[in-house]
Amino acid sequence: MQLREPGVCRVDVARGELIGATNRYVKTLADLDGLYEDTVAFDAAKRTLGDSVVYEVTDYKPSANSGDMIIGVTRMRPGKIGREYFLTRGHIHANANRPEMYYGESGCGVMLLESPEGEIRTVEIGPRTICYVPPFWIHRSANTGAKDLVMTFAYPADSGQDYGIIEEAGGMKSRVVDDGKGGWMLVDNARYLGRPASRVERVYASASAS
Amino acid sequence: MQLREPGVCRVDVARGELIGATNRYVKTLADLDGLYEDTVAFDAAKRTLGDSVVYEVTDYKPSANSGDMIIGVTRMRPGKIGREYFLTRGHIHANANRPEMYYGESGCGVMLLESPEGEIRTVEIGPRTICYVPPFWIHRSANTGAKDLVMTFAYPADSGQDYGIIEEAGGMKSRVVDDGKGGWMLVDNARYLGRPASRVERVYASASAS
Repeated sequence: MQLREPGVCRVDVARGELIGATNRYVKTLADLDGLYEDTVAFDAAKRTLGDSVVYEVTDYKPSANSGDMIIGVTRMRPGKIGREYFLTRGHIHANANRPEMYYGESGCGVMLLESPEGEIRTVEIGPRTICYVPPFWIHRSANTGAKDLVMTFAYPADSGQDYGIIEEAGGMKSRVVDDGKGGWMLVDNARYLGRPASRVERVYASASAS
Repeated sequence: MQLREPGVCRVDVARGELIGATNRYVKTLADLDGLYEDTVAFDAAKRTLGDSVVYEVTDYKPSANSGDMIIGVTRMRPGKIGREYFLTRGHIHANANRPEMYYGESGCGVMLLESPEGEIRTVEIGPRTICYVPPFWIHRSANTGAKDLVMTFAYPADSGQDYGIIEEAGGMKSRVVDDGKGGWMLVDNARYLGRPASRVERVYASASAS
């Protein structure tokens, strides 16, 4: 049998990149339109910084097959829109019964997790912290520090990403904001709609069908 | 649905441990009887150092279910038996279509990989190196440095370990030894028997049955 060759990559923490990656993508501030609480502040920032990269992902993807794993590095710039920290778009795995591991390399941030039913959890991430995102949790990260937040991650190659689950609900239930005292806190997302039971069931069904 | 809570651990690189682990095991020198080329040197070392820990594994295991991942840290002492570097017992995944990620934290070593058919590969691991072990590769690591080799790892929770595949074949095809010039090299394992086609087929069948 012709086996896949072993892979070798290197995490460049200072650059926030995976050397030896097979894929790279970036999200600019303009790409994140609609995510933030303060739309006036967002529009003002977009006019001057719309093309700025907010986060960059480099990853090593052997294949999309069940039985492979995708490994990568994400680097997020520090910053806020109004009081709300820069964040990733967030997702649940399209094959929802798939986990993800995030591993802090430098900087500090918060992993914001939401169950399909709308329960919120947070995990603070700093250097050498591992956050295990179990199956079925919607997740997004926010950079709550003054420096780049760099994390290494790994997840099964057949996971896929469903971004729509957040958009349909008007965002995640909570937002990660500056508490004005040098730290972060959660506030309710006033635009949050929640999701109907049928949508929740569809998440769990996507897993049992796989 | 009752979801598993998100996990938080921390890699203590200096101690070579995962803080927040759910499991821990150690292998002493005596546990590694039969692995080394130089049995006279091994027996001599065992008399004085038999109880010494050669390597220690701490890991976080949410469950053994498909859809979960196990994350851990391995710490291997530096040392040699004769010219052969300290090594792990090695394994193939019992559900052989499962990969593993190793991530160098400190020290330096070599990941030795063997396909079921007996092809050998090596990957050098140092700090921030990621070695991706694709499905179906037998793998073991050797500490080729003068300090502890510490690696973080992650693999699917339903992988399992089959150690017998190495024992049945009289070890792996190659050994990682001191080249006498400050580096390492591979030499043939004189006790290597290889494995019959039926055994190779059984590896691939274990995957398709899963």
